[in-house]
Amino acid sequence: MDLTISPLARPFPLLPPIDGTKLRVSRAGYKDWDRCDLTLVELAKGTTVAGVFTRSACASSEVELGREQAKLGRARALVVNAGNSNAFTGRGGREAVEQIMAQVAKALDCEPNEIFVSSTGVIGVLLPLDKARYGLNAALEAETCGWVDVAHAIGTTDTFPKGACASAMLGNTRVHLSGIIKGSGMIAPDMATMLGYVFTDAKVDPGFLQEMLCRANADTFSCITVDGDTSTSDTVLCFATGKANGELLADWESPGADAFYSALLGVCRELAQLVVRDGEGAQKFVAITVTGADSNESARRVGLSIGNSPLVKTAIAGGDANWGRVVMAVGKAGEPADRDRLSVGFGGIWAAREGQPLPEYDETPVTKHLAGEEVTIEVDLGIGEGRATVWTCDLTNGYIAINADYRS
Amino acid sequence: MDLTISPLARPFPLLPPIDGTKLRVSRAGYKDWDRCDLTLVELAKGTTVAGVFTRSACASSEVELGREQAKLGRARALVVNAGNSNAFTGRGGREAVEQIMAQVAKALDCEPNEIFVSSTGVIGVLLPLDKARYGLNAALEAETCGWVDVAHAIGTTDTFPKGACASAMLGNTRVHLSGIIKGSGMIAPDMATMLGYVFTDAKVDPGFLQEMLCRANADTFSCITVDGDTSTSDTVLCFATGKANGELLADWESPGADAFYSALLGVCRELAQLVVRDGEGAQKFVAITVTGADSNESARRVGLSIGNSPLVKTAIAGGDANWGRVVMAVGKAGEPADRDRLSVGFGGIWAAREGQPLPEYDETPVTKHLAGEEVTIEVDLGIGEGRATVWTCDLTNGYIAINADYRS
Repeated sequence: MDLTISPLARPFPLLPPIDGTKLRVSRAGYKDWDRCDLTLVELAKGTTVAGVFTRSACASSEVELGREQAKLGRARALVVNAGNSNAFTGRGGREAVEQIMAQVAKALDCEPNEIFVSSTGVIGVLLPLDKARYGLNAALEAETCGWVDVAHAIGTTDTFPKGACASAMLGNTRVHLSGIIKGSGMIAPDMATMLGYVFTDAKVDPGFLQEMLCRANADTFSCITVDGDTSTSDTVLCFATGKANGELLADWESPGADAFYSALLGVCRELAQLVVRDGEGAQKFVAITVTGADSNESARRVGLSIGNSPLVKTAIAGGDANWGRVVMAVGKAGEPADRDRLSVGFGGIWAAREGQPLPEYDETPVTKHLAGEEVTIEVDLGIGEGRATVWTCDLTNGYIAINADYRS
Repeated sequence: MDLTISPLARPFPLLPPIDGTKLRVSRAGYKDWDRCDLTLVELAKGTTVAGVFTRSACASSEVELGREQAKLGRARALVVNAGNSNAFTGRGGREAVEQIMAQVAKALDCEPNEIFVSSTGVIGVLLPLDKARYGLNAALEAETCGWVDVAHAIGTTDTFPKGACASAMLGNTRVHLSGIIKGSGMIAPDMATMLGYVFTDAKVDPGFLQEMLCRANADTFSCITVDGDTSTSDTVLCFATGKANGELLADWESPGADAFYSALLGVCRELAQLVVRDGEGAQKFVAITVTGADSNESARRVGLSIGNSPLVKTAIAGGDANWGRVVMAVGKAGEPADRDRLSVGFGGIWAAREGQPLPEYDETPVTKHLAGEEVTIEVDLGIGEGRATVWTCDLTNGYIAINADYRS
């Protein structure tokens, strides 16, 4: 089917090259299409890595292996296959991943467990070994390319390539972060989401990199939803080549650690929001802020209950200031809440406070706000200090059309 | 908007009158429509009652009061307001319910807590006291009517009236059960659902009636979903007038207790399925059977994860045998599962067994099955003895159209 570019799309930014990375793409031909669908990112010796992965009980072999590899903290290459997730393919699927790891390890003269593999696309179809081998050979011989080429090559139902960057000063050394991501449907991360990759030339201890990635993930990728469906292949990896030649970031006491974390958090947030902006069928970008919750985690869960509610999402699509449906979604979240302390608003205007509609509430400015492309929903639970912001999109006929017709 | 009758609708059955009930409807005019929207069912002295209610943290005053009243076990009347749920209306909302209870109690010369009130419709708008009073006066003076009139009068976005009946022999006495229900969207019961009422002329101890209703609810109303959104007003009540003059059903040892429970279960199951058949935008009725789970409750949760997945529901709408999305939904359920023991099928035909696609799998008969109006999905987790069946419908453009445009 012909996927038109999301109205919420953002132009691809100018991502800085990251010293210690070499980007290449090739045509493995995983599907019958005329595009690059295999990505190979070669990483300098000494690169450290951290990762967060889907909690799905049906995770792919790529995820299973990646989890173990990330614990070792070393990486020499990333391979991404697009068009076939290789999930739910049994022993054969695992062997396919191991073949890719062995082939690249041999070419780069390193250990197979330093090669990270991700696959995305249809579930339940074995990754064709011959196509993977052919595509890898082509990639190993290809000219290097740019970030936008890689961002295109890892996509599937994505309607635009997605990237984000930042930099930070570590003492006297400026380090750079460039990140890319793919994702549009089956988006409801549970600790991790989609396929996202952040590369930096900073030198970072892998344990500390993991700690920072987990923390950033909790406030970014874990706060987005398109459809409440969690993928079997969700993966976010962060690679640090160390080529900026600055001091090692070993813990929060290291010079520049806060600046680096802030840059990483910014890249992760931008990448996460870009996925929502490419949500299948999305016409509106929705930020839901929940305050006054029992805890930050409770606020996040209430936010996701609202962001996953088809009745809330269709009301947004219809430009209907239907705050009663927000009340419903708070009520069903299973989190601490008190109906008589609950306040709900749109676009910064309260419609109801402490359990009842405001007598002076005027729907006119709210309806105008809902007619725009950027919508905010505010919920105050009035029982504690916990807060979180969750990002989602509206639910439109476009989502139905894409998913009733497309075998993803 | 003009709601056309669901293609999955069933004709209203011939429900037997229940001795000890008097049915009346009237026009309170809760919305600007030309139809009866207030229902009054008068119940004979000595009627016992049991109830299950929404677990929403934002439940309406009707639900709060109903929960307390059901514990007392006595009922003399049921009042149902359609077009306004009176939920999230603070103290004023509670006073409206208490006014209705007082007015009917005075007319019937009984205690206010023997009058059960339900309201359904838009959230956050105070039930107009004058319209309720006017409607009740009209109902108290109206001629009695039949079940189909009541089934119409309690509906909102329902496209057809819904009822079910059964009978059972208790010793030498035949007792009858007649049930009605309303519901179409915001359907994802959590112990209770929608507005459903079962009336019987059996004489039943209220504690035992509660035990039977809770048990039946767990296998029927708690196993359906249309959109994963749980209402603030969900209520199921069962009234027993005792007018059949048989023996008291006091516990499972009472003669005919099993027959009565079986009849009650059948009525509840039929009513629950009728709600799914009127699911907003539904074109297909889907039964999801999960076996081999850790427990029956775990099987139910896995089934609901599948039944609530928009990707599964849009695949069904598109007639796409996309079993990979079923795998995804099992994986995200958060229940015990083992990818390598999981089997998935449609229409009784396995597509994948024990973690991988079957080599001999032929999609042709499955695609034919999915083209029909009644679809089954089979999942075997392969790890235990737990099982459950969950009922849902597909997700179509019709759902979007109804909910983007309708203030419910």
